[in-house]
Amino acid sequence: MYKLLDGKLISEQIKTEIAEEVKRMMEAGMKRPHLAVIIVGHDGGSESYVAGKIKDCETCGFQSTLIRFEEDVTEERLLEEVDRLNRDSDVDGFIVQLPLPKHISEQKIIEAIDYRKDVDGFHPINVGRLSIGLPCYISATPAGIMELLKRYQIETCGKNCVVIGRSNIVGKPTAMLLMQKGYPGDATVTVCHSRTQNLKEICREADIIVAALGQPEFLKADMVKDGVVIIDVGTTRVPSTETKSGFKLKGDVDFNDVATKASYITPVPGGVGLMTRVSLMKNTLLAAKGEIYGK
Amino acid sequence: MYKLLDGKLISEQIKTEIAEEVKRMMEAGMKRPHLAVIIVGHDGGSESYVAGKIKDCETCGFQSTLIRFEEDVTEERLLEEVDRLNRDSDVDGFIVQLPLPKHISEQKIIEAIDYRKDVDGFHPINVGRLSIGLPCYISATPAGIMELLKRYQIETCGKNCVVIGRSNIVGKPTAMLLMQKGYPGDATVTVCHSRTQNLKEICREADIIVAALGQPEFLKADMVKDGVVIIDVGTTRVPSTETKSGFKLKGDVDFNDVATKASYITPVPGGVGLMTRVSLMKNTLLAAKGEIYGK
Repeated sequence: MYKLLDGKLISEQIKTEIAEEVKRMMEAGMKRPHLAVIIVGHDGGSESYVAGKIKDCETCGFQSTLIRFEEDVTEERLLEEVDRLNRDSDVDGFIVQLPLPKHISEQKIIEAIDYRKDVDGFHPINVGRLSIGLPCYISATPAGIMELLKRYQIETCGKNCVVIGRSNIVGKPTAMLLMQKGYPGDATVTVCHSRTQNLKEICREADIIVAALGQPEFLKADMVKDGVVIIDVGTTRVPSTETKSGFKLKGDVDFNDVATKASYITPVPGGVGLMTRVSLMKNTLLAAKGEIYGK
Repeated sequence: MYKLLDGKLISEQIKTEIAEEVKRMMEAGMKRPHLAVIIVGHDGGSESYVAGKIKDCETCGFQSTLIRFEEDVTEERLLEEVDRLNRDSDVDGFIVQLPLPKHISEQKIIEAIDYRKDVDGFHPINVGRLSIGLPCYISATPAGIMELLKRYQIETCGKNCVVIGRSNIVGKPTAMLLMQKGYPGDATVTVCHSRTQNLKEICREADIIVAALGQPEFLKADMVKDGVVIIDVGTTRVPSTETKSGFKLKGDVDFNDVATKASYITPVPGGVGLMTRVSLMKNTLLAAKGEIYGK
């Protein structure tokens, strides 16, 4: 019988821990942690992610600032705002919600953010430091996955970990973290992707599978071995008549099928997504305390 | 019968190509590419590596500057020199030969180098950009390996590549490059290391093996499958009565044993080491031409 890797439970615990720490910081006369979020346009997904981030700030006792731009904002204007936030000493960290409209270079915006305030961990300096194994802001999804493994004390040393997907924000950094020295790390890591020829055979040898390919219910029971640990990063919105919103979130794992063989498994929703959310809060707290790059 | 991945032949070709390009640059009235090398102390390995780099500069038609410090130089003094080279517009790129004496933080020195002159590709910005897949200075050994695969048109797409070793300068960046989109990349990549439990089984499934663990003649024929492509990064000096120098370079691969099953294999010496050397020259040329970060 599988155990749930309960992102809801763990993320609530972490939010409580953060709120308590903020309370202690306030009592010690310190500044309240402050996250700023830039949103461009009105994409439904972005709106709901950003609303969640602002709500999490409240729960954690952070100050938050939401900065809105319309779809037609120029890259230049956005860069000005990034520069203003870089210099605003009251803002500990900030993010620019992606995706951005096509006329704006996401990479240019990301690189304009002061890496010391880059709580999304997307700046090349933070990506490079993660790869080297130096202290840095780890992007939220890989950080959330590591935290979940830690809280459930999942053994990773010497385990065969298969990461399906090679994206810059999930697959690659998760692979780098799993192969680092120490815990949770020291794993033998295989990165698979669209060009992989023998995915089924590779997955069947895996002790831990991180599915991050963005294909709903892709991973089936016949692709895994008994006792596997499953981390499902997928969050595809599929149309549904069962919900008020008219859609349902589906993971990359066929949960009911794979759960029959798994020892631990994350649900969708209620798994990695919530861990991702709370990881941004952790990074903001680190920024406020100057724990990575000093104050 | 195996084919040799001939690092000597290919690196000579590339040096000729570079020298021809430098000649054209001179004819067009451009500045001669200029590499500066800082060496601290008198470590035998470092001395011979640095001598090789200076000699390669001559062959390629580059200007070179060798800057020597004694073992007892302070970190502060070394940082001053790095700063001076950062600001010296005549120097296109420079490196600080590693290792450094224990009282100096290598990481601090590396991060002090202007990433636009970091032709070793060790600065976190270059490491991060490599991971993200952006133009950057790729560190010399992984760059040399990729070039060798390219020149011999070794297919990598969908192939099972096993990288043995997770160092910051070889294992991790080579893994990242092999999994990137495009050629030579698109491989399914497994990173193994000292904690890996089933190395033999994993190696036996590999189409391409990059051995970078630093253990002489570790890889044997019974650990590989027929037709495997072998990239041997090992260069351990072992005592020898056969040579004048009193030592011999040994790779991580038992060449005579593994060659019986390999389709392609690099010799040691004459393989990856020479490709590493010439890759520094390529990076210096890129720096002189401003091809990565502009002038």
